[in-house]
Amino acid sequence: MANQRLFEIDQWKIKTNKFEKEHKRLQESLTSLANGYMGIRGNFEESYSGESLKGTYIAGVWFPDKTRVGWWKNGYPEYFGKVINAMNFIGIDVYVDDEKVDLSQNDIESFELELNMKEGILRRSAVVRVNQKAVKISSERFLSLDVPQLCAIHYEAECLSDEAVITLVPYLDGNVANEDANFEERFWQEEAKGAESHRGHLVTKTIENPFGTPRFTVAASMCNVTEGYVSEHFQTDAMYAENRYCYEVGPGTKASLKKLIIVTTSRDFEEAELLVQGRALLADVLRQGYEEAKRRHTEHWMERWAKADIEIKGDDELQQGIRYNLFQLFSTYYGADSRLNIGPKGFTGEKYGGAAYWDTEAYAVPMYLATAEPEVTKNLLLYRYHHLEAAKRNAAKLGLKGALYPMVTFTGDECHNEWEITFEEIHRNGAICYAIYNYVNYTGDRDYMKEYGIDVLVEISRFWADRVHFSKRNNKYMIHGVTGPNEYENNVNNNWYTNLIASWTLEYTLENLAILPEEKRRRLDVREAEIEKWKDIIERMYYPYSEELNVFIQHDTFLDKELQAADELEPGDRPLYQNWSWDKILRSSFIKQADVLQGIYFFNHRFTMEEKRRNFEFYEPMTVHESSLSPSVHAVLAAELKMEKKALELYKRTARLDLDNYNHDTEEGLHITSMTGSWLAIVQGFAGMRTQDEKLSFAPFLPKEWDGYSFNINYRDRLINVQVEENSVVFSLLKGEPLSMTVYGEQIALNGRYERRMAR
Amino acid sequence: MANQRLFEIDQWKIKTNKFEKEHKRLQESLTSLANGYMGIRGNFEESYSGESLKGTYIAGVWFPDKTRVGWWKNGYPEYFGKVINAMNFIGIDVYVDDEKVDLSQNDIESFELELNMKEGILRRSAVVRVNQKAVKISSERFLSLDVPQLCAIHYEAECLSDEAVITLVPYLDGNVANEDANFEERFWQEEAKGAESHRGHLVTKTIENPFGTPRFTVAASMCNVTEGYVSEHFQTDAMYAENRYCYEVGPGTKASLKKLIIVTTSRDFEEAELLVQGRALLADVLRQGYEEAKRRHTEHWMERWAKADIEIKGDDELQQGIRYNLFQLFSTYYGADSRLNIGPKGFTGEKYGGAAYWDTEAYAVPMYLATAEPEVTKNLLLYRYHHLEAAKRNAAKLGLKGALYPMVTFTGDECHNEWEITFEEIHRNGAICYAIYNYVNYTGDRDYMKEYGIDVLVEISRFWADRVHFSKRNNKYMIHGVTGPNEYENNVNNNWYTNLIASWTLEYTLENLAILPEEKRRRLDVREAEIEKWKDIIERMYYPYSEELNVFIQHDTFLDKELQAADELEPGDRPLYQNWSWDKILRSSFIKQADVLQGIYFFNHRFTMEEKRRNFEFYEPMTVHESSLSPSVHAVLAAELKMEKKALELYKRTARLDLDNYNHDTEEGLHITSMTGSWLAIVQGFAGMRTQDEKLSFAPFLPKEWDGYSFNINYRDRLINVQVEENSVVFSLLKGEPLSMTVYGEQIALNGRYERRMAR
Repeated sequence: MANQRLFEIDQWKIKTNKFEKEHKRLQESLTSLANGYMGIRGNFEESYSGESLKGTYIAGVWFPDKTRVGWWKNGYPEYFGKVINAMNFIGIDVYVDDEKVDLSQNDIESFELELNMKEGILRRSAVVRVNQKAVKISSERFLSLDVPQLCAIHYEAECLSDEAVITLVPYLDGNVANEDANFEERFWQEEAKGAESHRGHLVTKTIENPFGTPRFTVAASMCNVTEGYVSEHFQTDAMYAENRYCYEVGPGTKASLKKLIIVTTSRDFEEAELLVQGRALLADVLRQGYEEAKRRHTEHWMERWAKADIEIKGDDELQQGIRYNLFQLFSTYYGADSRLNIGPKGFTGEKYGGAAYWDTEAYAVPMYLATAEPEVTKNLLLYRYHHLEAAKRNAAKLGLKGALYPMVTFTGDECHNEWEITFEEIHRNGAICYAIYNYVNYTGDRDYMKEYGIDVLVEISRFWADRVHFSKRNNKYMIHGVTGPNEYENNVNNNWYTNLIASWTLEYTLENLAILPEEKRRRLDVREAEIEKWKDIIERMYYPYSEELNVFIQHDTFLDKELQAADELEPGDRPLYQNWSWDKILRSSFIKQADVLQGIYFFNHRFTMEEKRRNFEFYEPMTVHESSLSPSVHAVLAAELKMEKKALELYKRTARLDLDNYNHDTEEGLHITSMTGSWLAIVQGFAGMRTQDEKLSFAPFLPKEWDGYSFNINYRDRLINVQVEENSVVFSLLKGEPLSMTVYGEQIALNGRYERRMAR
Repeated sequence: MANQRLFEIDQWKIKTNKFEKEHKRLQESLTSLANGYMGIRGNFEESYSGESLKGTYIAGVWFPDKTRVGWWKNGYPEYFGKVINAMNFIGIDVYVDDEKVDLSQNDIESFELELNMKEGILRRSAVVRVNQKAVKISSERFLSLDVPQLCAIHYEAECLSDEAVITLVPYLDGNVANEDANFEERFWQEEAKGAESHRGHLVTKTIENPFGTPRFTVAASMCNVTEGYVSEHFQTDAMYAENRYCYEVGPGTKASLKKLIIVTTSRDFEEAELLVQGRALLADVLRQGYEEAKRRHTEHWMERWAKADIEIKGDDELQQGIRYNLFQLFSTYYGADSRLNIGPKGFTGEKYGGAAYWDTEAYAVPMYLATAEPEVTKNLLLYRYHHLEAAKRNAAKLGLKGALYPMVTFTGDECHNEWEITFEEIHRNGAICYAIYNYVNYTGDRDYMKEYGIDVLVEISRFWADRVHFSKRNNKYMIHGVTGPNEYENNVNNNWYTNLIASWTLEYTLENLAILPEEKRRRLDVREAEIEKWKDIIERMYYPYSEELNVFIQHDTFLDKELQAADELEPGDRPLYQNWSWDKILRSSFIKQADVLQGIYFFNHRFTMEEKRRNFEFYEPMTVHESSLSPSVHAVLAAELKMEKKALELYKRTARLDLDNYNHDTEEGLHITSMTGSWLAIVQGFAGMRTQDEKLSFAPFLPKEWDGYSFNINYRDRLINVQVEENSVVFSLLKGEPLSMTVYGEQIALNGRYERRMAR
């Protein structure tokens, strides 16, 4: 059952006809729109004086907020890079006979809100009582996939009952702030503004900062297309520009306005060119007209869906969930710009800051590999490649060699400041390498390895080789003082996962160094002694293991804990992070997200089914899945282990995490990076897709509750449709050359259509 | 060699005739004065526009500064209680022909500064060039031990070369701030002010706070005694009141002013009474006159020294060091008020906040027991007793039973917010119990145990019993997730010291419960099952131990570290906390302060000499002593182990820590609670004083570099002098009944004088 469900079940839409003021922020998060270039929370165009989180975010535009910390630790970064709320360009104030429309104050007679995921369009209408008059307002808006700088809004107001004077005031407003600013600073200053007939512009720039990070200038050029007005005004104020139209309307006539905004930034253009470029783009859009712009935008969405859609037959809740997740992911990132990455909240909220977490490499890369062109993923990898020098600085700051990729970043420089995470959650470095492996293995793009990947691998290997220490009494290499993926423990020794991924990195680096052209090897300057050291570490790495239980041990002293299963917890205890003190969480055996099992998931082919089963049965019951990244990995493993019920249960947690507000925090923004989880659970879980050793294989099964499911996979220039029904599994080659692949362990040649019975 | 020594060596004085502007803050710290009721850094009376840390502090007057934290953890306190800078009441602006005297600007022709520790008086004089004229200024001030509310200043100015108009402006100024305010807030508001002929007053009150903690009102009543002036004015301004006197002076005539200030607070009087009471006290002082007030003040210091002085013959540096430490300790706390405690910086700076740390119980209690009347220590114990309910709240906040005393506090409620300390450095609870044991054992005051002590012991025992967990596979009780006294590791499991003091607490509680009157036992409601659990924990507590090395192990995985000795470090590495990243420190084997050895120090009689030696030899070389609390415990143990050179080296670090600014941070304030260390090192170390099992014993030796040392000990209504010289040890009973005691393991009866040869 849903924890908190605002929207109706529908295969392609997020819609409701209820307006619940107490859930306004949640509604705003869920109706966020973005196009990779910018994004807007589902804020209303007209004024809203009630509880709301205003949010407009421009990709790559951030501010280095002075670090706030109670007790400074050596090595902390000076700033925390923050996604900043940019100017409000969607705003349209609405007056009825001089009374301002405000849905938090006016009586609402009807309300409709609908996000169409197929088209990427948000529509809303309401009948409100203003000045005793029944007024219908409606809006339609989209952020164009065709012209990414474009936000287009079609806004209408009509008086259903009487005659009235309706005033529409489309504006641009830079008087915005971040709720999460550390010292309540405002991050913007005005550079230019102007208003004239039908037009306005506002240019704002991030304020100076003492850290030498770049400043950003954002320009909005607005044009309003409307007719039937009886008077027009325009004016500016501090960080503000508006147009103002009055309409005399009666039943059957409408005040109707198309507000077109082009947003240009100093990331793409010279500062002096911003308005010129903006106006040129605006002129193009005006030439096409609103409807044509909308059609082109919609077409792009159709293309994306054609590559990536997943159908679930027989369960509309889950159907809606998976589509919603894909919709929001593709809105956040579709590979257009290798300077960008996938922030945990995308363009939907402030919390967390930074643009890149290891979530990208661990969870998003496999999905983008299969649902989009290889370039999309390649750009995610290049993002890290471009940050290699910064990652070396991060390692040096801790007194270590090689490269340590940051936990949270915009530029490659670390900007998170909890010592147990910043300094200790170093397994993130492994995920960066794993993503390189994943990409090269999936696409076969060996040039990437030679040109970019190996540089990153070598520096990360150097980091690991320096970060381990040799314990004489154990005759083993160890890694002390780390935080594993399970952040409900920290500063532990020999986290099994971290030791594993560190040692694997060295292995994989050596393997690729061996086949590298001589010249590049010379440039990387890896000496024989270094290679010997790496081999020794691989050889003598310590992995906690229990003979008695026959399982890998999460870290050195995990088994000394009082081992409790999550189902022994009282309902009032959960979620632990809200109900328990931090020390109690740390001392408990409860696991926030896959840790040992993350390793088994990554290196699936290295473990026997029996090992997988034993470790899953040991760890999963202690796992509280309080990271939104947790259920998917477990779902994939449960599926492989034929624990159908468990797999489905876990899948459900990933599929509707935000739509049903499972974690009680979606009002702050969506869990963007976790959204790949539902895709992973279906494709890698239920359909059993694996790509290890450059071989594509499937072993699908159908959850009993479903009638069937199907999805498309992009694999090495092919588009393959996988259709799973009650008794049959059908693979169709929609595009590309024939392909040899494996189904239920049996090699087949896919050429056209291949059908077989479901394995039991 | 000194790291940074501003003052000359002198047995009873801290003096210099150099003024080094670049060390002004350090000079201010070192010339701080206090009388337990209030304290002032060595700020100049006249204006000083250069680098300076203004500091006036009133005991028990604090403000709950809103907690600043980067990442909130459940269980963190909402505020950090802060010692606040109160109004400046010593200020006297000085003008020469309308030019303001400012020692940071004027040329200084001579300068003398002297803190007389015997008398508790600070004197300063300088000849400065103002307006081309040579002007001599001089001041003398004290904070009275006789009338604790009194600050008395005798200020003089004369023109050595010419005639001049000198203006003296004694004032009260509430426009002060804390440098360490978390959000740059000012903590004071004005309540009343006034100025009239020769008099002024200012009443300020701490601003409102959202945490429901008490507000404090502080009133200063000023009276200025002077003659020979030619004009007088008085006026007030925001948070400010002044008198103003002009004098026409020439060579041989002086402008001379006695500024007397009485400071009363709402901690002692009704708010409406503050000025009335202040004036009454002022009237008494005026009746006596300045000189008589000074005489009475000095007399109190003489009495204190008579009870507590330590003489070191043959080493004036160390002589000065130990006296300086006793002087500052007695200035900070002398037991007058059980609502007060000993903050780590006393009245000398802002850093750390809070009033009470476990330093008090572990380091200060043994010294006060021997150097002052039992009431002084008893009041320190009652402080914690009065906080028992708050300590229960602290435990409950973490989801635990019983009482957890805070790491940092004013009211008993925790106000520190680093999870690894706040939630994990729980050994502090043990020190509270140890102090009760120490007091009862030393004084024989069993009534204290029955009436107060046992309540605390029982609740702390309840805490430990809930905080341990049972590890099935080891069949042992364990304590996971703690930070031991060595804060260069944290979140460790089974810190040997913590496990030891927890188990000892249970033992000691049971021992005292057994002899408690029936009625009190009933009131404490300790059930049989609880007692059985405690016994089981004592029985099956786990203590990490290495058979191979034959030493106790600091915590579970300490031996897996790369074990390095401190002398392997490069000079540039030290101090580690300034040069290494936090994670590197945590992973290293370097120890900040005694940890296992702290346990051996506390429970000295439970370990064989061989155990002490092995553990000392194992741990001390890895110890960097970067806590000012570290060297003393090691010095005591080294002395016991006859490692004379080591003991003396460590003693030196404690004796002149601030005078020689070893830690490069004395400019921020003195290390008050560490100052007991030098006393401990001499009395428990070199003289080998022990009091275990209610038996007084000594085993003195004389460091080769010294000619002798002597000190007085207060023990159960007796005053005993101990005199150690090259070949002889002399014990003299100065006061009280004959006493049976032990010298070098031999029982003697002390009645008058007892002399014997030094044991070799």
